[in-house]
Amino acid sequence: MARDVRMKGFAERTDVEVVDRFLAEWAKPLPSERVSLLDCVGRVLSEGVRAEVDVPSFSRSAMDGYAVRGEDTFGASNYDSLSFELLGTALPGKPFDGHVERGTAVRVMTGAPLPAGADAVVMAEVCSESDGHVLVREPVTPHKHVGAVGEDICSGDDVLLPGRRLRAQDAGLLASIGVAEPLCVRRPRVRLVVTGDELLPAGSQPTGPHIVDSNSVVLRALVSRDGGELLPFEILPDRPELIRDALQAEADVVLVSGGSSVGQEDHAPRLVAELGELHFHGISMRPSSPAGVGQIGERIVFLLPGNPVSCLCAYEFFAGPTIRALGGRSREWPHRLVRLPLARKISSAIGRTDYVRVAIEANKVVPIATSGASILSSTVRAAGCVIVAREHEGMPEGAEVEVRLYDEHPSEGGALP
Amino acid sequence: MARDVRMKGFAERTDVEVVDRFLAEWAKPLPSERVSLLDCVGRVLSEGVRAEVDVPSFSRSAMDGYAVRGEDTFGASNYDSLSFELLGTALPGKPFDGHVERGTAVRVMTGAPLPAGADAVVMAEVCSESDGHVLVREPVTPHKHVGAVGEDICSGDDVLLPGRRLRAQDAGLLASIGVAEPLCVRRPRVRLVVTGDELLPAGSQPTGPHIVDSNSVVLRALVSRDGGELLPFEILPDRPELIRDALQAEADVVLVSGGSSVGQEDHAPRLVAELGELHFHGISMRPSSPAGVGQIGERIVFLLPGNPVSCLCAYEFFAGPTIRALGGRSREWPHRLVRLPLARKISSAIGRTDYVRVAIEANKVVPIATSGASILSSTVRAAGCVIVAREHEGMPEGAEVEVRLYDEHPSEGGALP
Repeated sequence: MARDVRMKGFAERTDVEVVDRFLAEWAKPLPSERVSLLDCVGRVLSEGVRAEVDVPSFSRSAMDGYAVRGEDTFGASNYDSLSFELLGTALPGKPFDGHVERGTAVRVMTGAPLPAGADAVVMAEVCSESDGHVLVREPVTPHKHVGAVGEDICSGDDVLLPGRRLRAQDAGLLASIGVAEPLCVRRPRVRLVVTGDELLPAGSQPTGPHIVDSNSVVLRALVSRDGGELLPFEILPDRPELIRDALQAEADVVLVSGGSSVGQEDHAPRLVAELGELHFHGISMRPSSPAGVGQIGERIVFLLPGNPVSCLCAYEFFAGPTIRALGGRSREWPHRLVRLPLARKISSAIGRTDYVRVAIEANKVVPIATSGASILSSTVRAAGCVIVAREHEGMPEGAEVEVRLYDEHPSEGGALP
Repeated sequence: MARDVRMKGFAERTDVEVVDRFLAEWAKPLPSERVSLLDCVGRVLSEGVRAEVDVPSFSRSAMDGYAVRGEDTFGASNYDSLSFELLGTALPGKPFDGHVERGTAVRVMTGAPLPAGADAVVMAEVCSESDGHVLVREPVTPHKHVGAVGEDICSGDDVLLPGRRLRAQDAGLLASIGVAEPLCVRRPRVRLVVTGDELLPAGSQPTGPHIVDSNSVVLRALVSRDGGELLPFEILPDRPELIRDALQAEADVVLVSGGSSVGQEDHAPRLVAELGELHFHGISMRPSSPAGVGQIGERIVFLLPGNPVSCLCAYEFFAGPTIRALGGRSREWPHRLVRLPLARKISSAIGRTDYVRVAIEANKVVPIATSGASILSSTVRAAGCVIVAREHEGMPEGAEVEVRLYDEHPSEGGALP
């Protein structure tokens, strides 16, 4: 063991808020790219969309029925039906070629172009057909049951604004105005740098002094939730030259899991400082105090502690908001919130931000006792987390707290027994 | 036009609740399949998972420091440090081979296996190394800073219950206990059958009497949201023989968009009735009253009206809950809810369920006036929807209503001007 042995704690720790403000200031949406209509839902528009067509671009029937001149039907009633000569049929995509004159009608289906000369549609329900004619038993006013040109969208309308995170129906609207590839904020490319000689790849059986890498599995899912594009990765041995290469490989965001504290095998902080700038290392929080943030060129680097709860926590506080912001999304945590009273007090310390896993039992919030940073099962047992801000020494029993729920849907959280 | 012309309305309409009850009864989770750990987040476990290993499977250091016999440190203080012979180093994945005897210590990093003979770790911060020895300035009790075998998970623990929708950390936990392919409910395979001679594929420019198919774009995103697996599809011409083939092709769920009402070109209802059973057709709701539900063999078939708002609405009421239930998820609508007062009254009719698009302005709910079923832009302009149940004639101004928000995150909804 010829290597320099540095085994000291952090001289000082930075407040969570300071790191958060730095990241909020730093992270701007990435440049834009064209995205296929079929892949654009959930993406963020980098520029607004203006319609260049009317939707619909032709008058169309809003009913199954008969296209007529509305004024010709005035006076029609159950007792005194009016007869129209039936000229033909208009179907969606198959217009009727001729012209509707006084006293004539064309059979139309919903969505069919309104034949020339007609200005209204009589519903099929109040008509009967026989012998080349149609008897109309109710009058319609002009424009009735007709979808006008541009009734949905007019050419020149600003239909979607920049920054919009596209919903299903937004993509449908883009389709309807002929946009094939909206301009969206590029997804941040995220590189995982998972180091540790003790780690076996996910899917292995744990054996001997080895444990299975779970952090990459968790991070992969969180990055995907936050709209990042995960680059291929493999677990690296604790060798500085390999970690150095990985830190410099192409990426917008680098997540280093493991080897990020101040111990002997913790190469990443020193390498980040050498290759770029280590902005923060050591943060006043629990868990995740060994977390750090640095920068190598345009790459932002997050040092996530190897302990699985710390890794999750540091991701949620720092990496998640940054990945979302780079992709044009809101930095806000994406969890559903619920406000409920505490069943037991939570202890913390002034000056330190705590990430507390909690269960919800009988509509009360129960802090999970096993709070070690290495106990991943505590996050599985938990319904969500409560953040204790640094100005608080803790929270008393009965206090209403805000729980960030891990589950997308409350009824899908089948907890551990 | 030699074909039989049927142009009548629905003789009677079924209540939304009746259809919903039928579907709730009908849809059971699909059979299970093995899913790769890396793809399992969001999937639903079809059977519980029991740990067959301890995590960790060895005692490990929870700190960077020195492994010792705790009792040997009793009496150590700043004024009276105790000296231990340094035997070597234990690193994560690289255990120390020897045995810690009285008066000896082994340098350990966080996560390293605790050397044999040692029962505690002294933090590096209260030690100093020199000349093959380490001076310890604070005592530790046995077991201090040591992660015990099974402290996270014990062999035999039921770590996840059947029906659990897997979260990021659940997948991490599965990795840590060596599960490579959890058994999950199969995703429902969903076939889109989009018909209409007037339709151009998404990505085209609308032209002449043609409109661009937007329903498949919207449905694709909703099916993906609900965990369905979309099968390849193409737009079909309004020809019964082609629609018949598509209805019989392999699928768990068939979504028919267009041609599903009672008009001349509406072949799907008749075909479903011929090939299987048309359970419902015509529903007391607005929009989407021409919607229907049928069954062909094991396939459930949803007839979704071609008008885009109707299509979206019928999907949300009937197809969405069914797709989620088949995949083992909750039938509940997945939207975030917010309760706010109405800025203006909503009119409805007793006996009819209404799906009302609403904006949110100054913390009030504003029904969107343009309510035509063909006006897709109304769902783009809307922040969400309000359901008016059939027992209500409407809702008065000022009434608190529950809005189902379209946006996953409130701040990402940049609305139309």
